[in-house]
Amino acid sequence: MSKKKNKDNTKLTGLKIIPLGGLEQIGMNITAFEYEDSIIVVDCGLSFPADDMLGVDLVIPDVTYLKENASKVKGFVITHGHEDHIGALPYVLKEINAPVYATRLTMGIIENKLTEHELMDCTRRKVVKFGQFITLGKFRVEFIKTNHSIVDAAALAIYSPVGIIVHTGDFKVDYTPVYGDAIDLQRFADLGRKGVLAMMCDSTNAERPGYTPSEKTLGRMFDNLFEEHKNTRIFVATFASNVDRVQQIINSAHKFGRKVSVEGRSMVNIIETAQKLECISIPNDTLVDLDMIKNYPPEKQVIITTGSQGESMAALSRMAGGTHRKITVGAGDTVIFSSHPIPGNEKSVTKIINELLAKGVDVIFQDVHVSGHACQEEIKLIYTLVQPKFAIPAHGEFKHLKAQAKIAEELGMDKDHIKILSSGDVLEFGEDFATVTGRVPVGDILVDGLGVGDVGNVVLRDRQHLAEDGIMIVVMCLDEISGELVAGPDIVSRGFVYMKESEDLIEEARALVQETVEGYIRRHVSDWGKIKSGTKDVLSEFVWKKTKRRPMILPVIQEV
Amino acid sequence: MSKKKNKDNTKLTGLKIIPLGGLEQIGMNITAFEYEDSIIVVDCGLSFPADDMLGVDLVIPDVTYLKENASKVKGFVITHGHEDHIGALPYVLKEINAPVYATRLTMGIIENKLTEHELMDCTRRKVVKFGQFITLGKFRVEFIKTNHSIVDAAALAIYSPVGIIVHTGDFKVDYTPVYGDAIDLQRFADLGRKGVLAMMCDSTNAERPGYTPSEKTLGRMFDNLFEEHKNTRIFVATFASNVDRVQQIINSAHKFGRKVSVEGRSMVNIIETAQKLECISIPNDTLVDLDMIKNYPPEKQVIITTGSQGESMAALSRMAGGTHRKITVGAGDTVIFSSHPIPGNEKSVTKIINELLAKGVDVIFQDVHVSGHACQEEIKLIYTLVQPKFAIPAHGEFKHLKAQAKIAEELGMDKDHIKILSSGDVLEFGEDFATVTGRVPVGDILVDGLGVGDVGNVVLRDRQHLAEDGIMIVVMCLDEISGELVAGPDIVSRGFVYMKESEDLIEEARALVQETVEGYIRRHVSDWGKIKSGTKDVLSEFVWKKTKRRPMILPVIQEV
Repeated sequence: MSKKKNKDNTKLTGLKIIPLGGLEQIGMNITAFEYEDSIIVVDCGLSFPADDMLGVDLVIPDVTYLKENASKVKGFVITHGHEDHIGALPYVLKEINAPVYATRLTMGIIENKLTEHELMDCTRRKVVKFGQFITLGKFRVEFIKTNHSIVDAAALAIYSPVGIIVHTGDFKVDYTPVYGDAIDLQRFADLGRKGVLAMMCDSTNAERPGYTPSEKTLGRMFDNLFEEHKNTRIFVATFASNVDRVQQIINSAHKFGRKVSVEGRSMVNIIETAQKLECISIPNDTLVDLDMIKNYPPEKQVIITTGSQGESMAALSRMAGGTHRKITVGAGDTVIFSSHPIPGNEKSVTKIINELLAKGVDVIFQDVHVSGHACQEEIKLIYTLVQPKFAIPAHGEFKHLKAQAKIAEELGMDKDHIKILSSGDVLEFGEDFATVTGRVPVGDILVDGLGVGDVGNVVLRDRQHLAEDGIMIVVMCLDEISGELVAGPDIVSRGFVYMKESEDLIEEARALVQETVEGYIRRHVSDWGKIKSGTKDVLSEFVWKKTKRRPMILPVIQEV
Repeated sequence: MSKKKNKDNTKLTGLKIIPLGGLEQIGMNITAFEYEDSIIVVDCGLSFPADDMLGVDLVIPDVTYLKENASKVKGFVITHGHEDHIGALPYVLKEINAPVYATRLTMGIIENKLTEHELMDCTRRKVVKFGQFITLGKFRVEFIKTNHSIVDAAALAIYSPVGIIVHTGDFKVDYTPVYGDAIDLQRFADLGRKGVLAMMCDSTNAERPGYTPSEKTLGRMFDNLFEEHKNTRIFVATFASNVDRVQQIINSAHKFGRKVSVEGRSMVNIIETAQKLECISIPNDTLVDLDMIKNYPPEKQVIITTGSQGESMAALSRMAGGTHRKITVGAGDTVIFSSHPIPGNEKSVTKIINELLAKGVDVIFQDVHVSGHACQEEIKLIYTLVQPKFAIPAHGEFKHLKAQAKIAEELGMDKDHIKILSSGDVLEFGEDFATVTGRVPVGDILVDGLGVGDVGNVVLRDRQHLAEDGIMIVVMCLDEISGELVAGPDIVSRGFVYMKESEDLIEEARALVQETVEGYIRRHVSDWGKIKSGTKDVLSEFVWKKTKRRPMILPVIQEV
């Protein structure tokens, strides 16, 4: 596979980068790096279903290429513990058993998942420290400290026989992080001086000018908010995985003599893991059980909760809707949203805000959040330190990748050395060029309940059709010998019209179908396919004329 | 009805304000004003279906109260021609035939709708000029010039025997409007000096500090963009009804020697109406048919299009997706979004932007838009001019109404005189107070195809269920006399799993159902209800255990 020639008759080096997801979208990050007999996989994330993926729980990447090359896969190297970087691991590990490498908290969160999927015993795992190198076949991988909206996020320096590739992971530059060190800028500089072949850099905020503020700026903000709302119970809704955010809320609570409860399963899980790994430091007697906090006066309570994205099943939504088992909110309560709505969630977040306000709650929903991703000036800083020969914008929709490409160009990079890839592209490196030499299969595998991949386009199209106008089922029974109608046709509908109020319409439809079927029988048509499609056509036209709707029509014939 | 007493034994004056929609939401604006034998209705809008209203085309208000008092209804007074203020008119007029009063362009747009619904002949209409008064039973109504994102928007002064009510409609303060005069601030001042009992004021932007910029600021922006993109074809996507925006795009096009085509049915209709009514002035030979514009070089073309909200069926979406019959876009084209995504549309807009960028189109999607609604300082200005005794924040979700209430309070209004109402509240006025004395029926009437109100909660719940996990239909045929199974049970599913790949599962389910049904037959259970519910329970449990899904299960029994 190595030293072959590409179309331009120029020598390829054999090093390949193959993104299997994560481009064209925020989510489902997974990239394969290949050289001769070695493949390493960076991240293995899920994405959440698009609006038209009705009933789907989550989406994982198609890893056919890895399955076909399973013997080459030396390991999964994970940059940090967010769902869009680890969420598909349990599913993919069932297909490709390779060891998992990650930093401490990242591994803690992965292990929670593996336990749930009963994969702990069969999965090799290694916790890696920042600065540590691991050897995976022909590759060596170094973990580099970065900052992000979750503790223990890492960038990777991937040493291949052809050159070094830097993968930033998701990152921001935080000179004053809440926990641990600032991003290891010196190491990025070292690598830059050594010479870096290519960099894959986070594009999420590439459209935003300036710098992302430090997580620590929120500490002062919480202090001020707690000062301003001294006499009310305080709720703070934020992302379950943002341990630093939770740390700062707890700090303010402690400073103002309040007890803290945590509500929402994912939040409870992550805080437990973070406590065990000492990534969060909670003063004694501060954390109390949700059942116990009501024993304290309201002004001594803080409740940290999930549901900041308006998720309908999350704790906050249940409180706002008045259906939470343990907590009732109302006048005299303050709810702080320490989050921004992720695109697509604006309406559900607003719904909750309105519900809370209508209950008399004081709601604070602006500016109590900072992003975990680098803005334009931070991206420029990293490029300037690393000075990669090739830039491969990563982690974003096309418009984000494009925005990062523009930054790289402004920094003086050669246009030919900036590669915007699509998921599935095989990027190969030559002596002084990089080019897409092929494609591997990629796509969305839909997970619905226990089913992985059994909901495909046909099922989705049916769900969309059913959702739009419902279904009309026509059942009839024919005599096996005479071919005569012995029962039906009867019509049952669901999701079409309220049957009781449309009896005339349904009866008219039924009579029409009966006439049609009897016509076929008189003409001795015994092909059920013909009878069914005839029924479908006649009924469909009738219903469209009468209602301008197109329910799914499903004729069912039985034989006696 | 007049001079009765309320709970506090304080005299009521008989004047009532009854919002029938438009509070708790942006959309479906309609408010009744009642005094003795007279009701006038201000606006009659629709709203667009919420995400969970599957398959619904549009939503109109429940006007039971108006129907029950039809003889009192003296007329519909319309503030401007946006769908959320006029869209329900054709439906409501079919129930309550009362005359419609509106300014010129507003009436032009209403007439397009009435023509479509074949209501022109049976609807009395009167075009009203700014400054003109109309008498409607015990009320007199004056139309006052305002500014908004559509030409000919009006505020209303409603003179009742009890006092003047000012209804601002949707407005902004634009000192330099593109077409016609600035908002008639002097008239608002006059009314204020006369003494205004209550004001209903637009709350849409009540959370935003400062002022909304003049529509005219965009004229210069379009000139600059046209200057910067001298060598490319230019597309501008904007709201169909924003005639002033279209005017400015045409002005820039003309200045730079370009021809203009308009694409998208709603846009074409409104521009035709605006031209007929001389609300837009298009230089000769500037507008050309879409079929003809390709005869000009790209840099001489401008195409104004609908679809700026990412609507999947609109022209822009078809261009971006490569499915437009007449226009192909690609490298060398510039697309300007002169709009902001309305909350809820962010993802669909982003999808189109990504598709266009991926095709090599230069996309400009930030800051080429100004709002049509007043920000905080403008709201303060109107309050300060009008000095109403009572404030009734209108047009917005609860958080917007609340934000306006806060502004009114900051301006020194008595808290008891600021009334945040819910749709359906009956607000009555006393000598020096206003209080909610009752409720009338309100709600969402869903329109799906030709059906108005025949899709209700049951149908919607079924559609949601079908959308989530599909349907399993169990059909069987029993002998009328013996009660024996003579055909089936057979299972058909749609939207559940891909049947061909799940044959084992379905067969296992079928066998289980057969066993269950045969059990009932053996025990001589002839109650179909029992057999059906037994089948449902058994199958539902089986499917949940196997798949963790809950498809709708529909048993159908026939008798031979």
